Amino acid sequence: MNALQLDTVRLSEDRSCLEILDQTLLPNTVRVLCLSGLEEIREAIWSLRVRGAPAIGVCAGYAIALTASRIRTKDKAVFCAEFRKQKLYLATARPTAVNLTWALDRMERVVLANLDRSVDEIKERLFVEAQAIRDEDVAISRAIGEIGFGLLRPGFGILTHCNAGTLATAKYGTATAPVYVALERGWTDLRVYCDETRPLLQGARLTAFELQSAGVDVTLLCDAMASSVMAQGRVDIVFVGCDRVARNGDTANKIGTSAVAILAKHYGIPFYVCAPSSTIDPSLENGEQIPIEERPPEEVTEMWYKERMAPAGVKVYNPAFDVTGCELITGIITEKGLCHAPYGPAFRALGIGAKR
Amino acid sequence: MNALQLDTVRLSEDRSCLEILDQTLLPNTVRVLCLSGLEEIREAIWSLRVRGAPAIGVCAGYAIALTASRIRTKDKAVFCAEFRKQKLYLATARPTAVNLTWALDRMERVVLANLDRSVDEIKERLFVEAQAIRDEDVAISRAIGEIGFGLLRPGFGILTHCNAGTLATAKYGTATAPVYVALERGWTDLRVYCDETRPLLQGARLTAFELQSAGVDVTLLCDAMASSVMAQGRVDIVFVGCDRVARNGDTANKIGTSAVAILAKHYGIPFYVCAPSSTIDPSLENGEQIPIEERPPEEVTEMWYKERMAPAGVKVYNPAFDVTGCELITGIITEKGLCHAPYGPAFRALGIGAKR
Repeated sequence: MNALQLDTVRLSEDRSCLEILDQTLLPNTVRVLCLSGLEEIREAIWSLRVRGAPAIGVCAGYAIALTASRIRTKDKAVFCAEFRKQKLYLATARPTAVNLTWALDRMERVVLANLDRSVDEIKERLFVEAQAIRDEDVAISRAIGEIGFGLLRPGFGILTHCNAGTLATAKYGTATAPVYVALERGWTDLRVYCDETRPLLQGARLTAFELQSAGVDVTLLCDAMASSVMAQGRVDIVFVGCDRVARNGDTANKIGTSAVAILAKHYGIPFYVCAPSSTIDPSLENGEQIPIEERPPEEVTEMWYKERMAPAGVKVYNPAFDVTGCELITGIITEKGLCHAPYGPAFRALGIGAKR
Repeated sequence: MNALQLDTVRLSEDRSCLEILDQTLLPNTVRVLCLSGLEEIREAIWSLRVRGAPAIGVCAGYAIALTASRIRTKDKAVFCAEFRKQKLYLATARPTAVNLTWALDRMERVVLANLDRSVDEIKERLFVEAQAIRDEDVAISRAIGEIGFGLLRPGFGILTHCNAGTLATAKYGTATAPVYVALERGWTDLRVYCDETRPLLQGARLTAFELQSAGVDVTLLCDAMASSVMAQGRVDIVFVGCDRVARNGDTANKIGTSAVAILAKHYGIPFYVCAPSSTIDPSLENGEQIPIEERPPEEVTEMWYKERMAPAGVKVYNPAFDVTGCELITGIITEKGLCHAPYGPAFRALGIGAKR
């Protein structure tokens, strides 16, 4: 099995259901769910069976195309009202996930732009748009991968944190895309070091899984071991994903990313952020304006086994993300090009963030 | 319950058994084992029921005093031969633990120095020596605590990694000693941040447990969160323990320590190593000469639950320790005094390592 051949999310060929690779069961079980009901699709997003901002966007597009196709009416006003109900219901699955509402809004614009057509024609255009969202996502990841690939040399050791992989997108991922592009070109001697990424272990469960299944030479580390691997000269470059990038290049990503950046700087290792241009938010001046979600202590004290591994009632600090200062970032790779500091002018030169 | 009132290891009042707090059951169960047989005592050391170099030394002293007291002979030659057999058997429990053989050798010297006395008198002197080893260990930790306490200010946030706590010694610990000294003096406003310390979670299971039970304001972190807490200005000083210190001050300690040191330097936070002078090894020029134990991959992929949380067969890098370069260390606190770089002359000035 090659993870690049696994679809994170797709429509079944007969358009009867949404096929979702259940990521909560990885790495122990590879199971594809066939979901057709609105409620079960929402539950899959809410329960992180499908996760990663781009993948959620793709899922939302397919989901509402599918559920809208089942609305039994020829009356456009009734159809629009029902579509809107479905959209609002799906949007509550992950209220903070920008790509979820972004994709649903985009789908609704297709409805509104085609009110001169029949309901059946509108339904068809929704399927076309969902496929377009998916294809654009693959193209963005692929473009990031090509640019990142240009930074690699044979035999490089690459370190990554969390999962910004094919499982978080429609294909290729962002931080993993340069590795998959190298693999497609027949490079077999890259080595990837993958932080396990406590507390939820996305590195151990997802990144190690997808790289291993694609045939990449991957080595799993506890987060605190990255310094040791870098000190031994085994890491030549770092690629990480991102959740949001401020105008000055300050980058919010999974907790621990800033530590990796500081270690990379200490050891003189280039540190690159892989960022679809949609994650660059020109409304934010710097990283201090990015809100950081704090999550339940049980993620740290109990993992998912529900067996306690810290004393009952101990105070826990469990932020989901941290901010990596732009001064620690060697470059930001977007699908439109590679940016260097100062990032504000670099983003503008590529037309990023001009209209949101 | 106050952890400072828990004895890591002690002799029962009637000298019938060794009482060991079983650390493998912490934090969920506090159970004191009463062990009297040579084999079960060796098993307790081997299985990490008692761990931490100083605590192992104290345990070994009591253990051989106890088992030697049961040797049924008045013949000194027979006694010496049997004592030596017991010593060699106990020494195999943790072959790399320096304090284990150090304590057993010290106990044997008591036998050899008292061959002009009766077997009963020798047995009595062994109990006295074991108690002396314990009392000296408490005094060393206490002295480190007093010096470290002098570096604290009210309201300080302190970060520590792994367990160099009272559970690793007879009392006070090394890295935790300044906090316990502050507590005894009535300081109630210190805040301790405790890295969970993957893979074996000594921070979550042991340090968080002992500090919480002593009434210290402790907050548990995943290792990758230390950067975030430091960035927010919540950490004023770092105290860590050590396993071995080279002549130049390079320090081997639990994996992840070097990352904490690099982060502390980045954020301008003082970083102190708490080192009983016995851990300073003048035979080693620098940290490159310290061998680093690599441990089984299952510690990372399965924890102790035996449920896999990484893909089967994935490569794992699992070093138990790393080396923190002396240039990252603000000071090394020994029971004989506080040392600053250059450490070689500083150690010599305190008479450390003059004779080993």
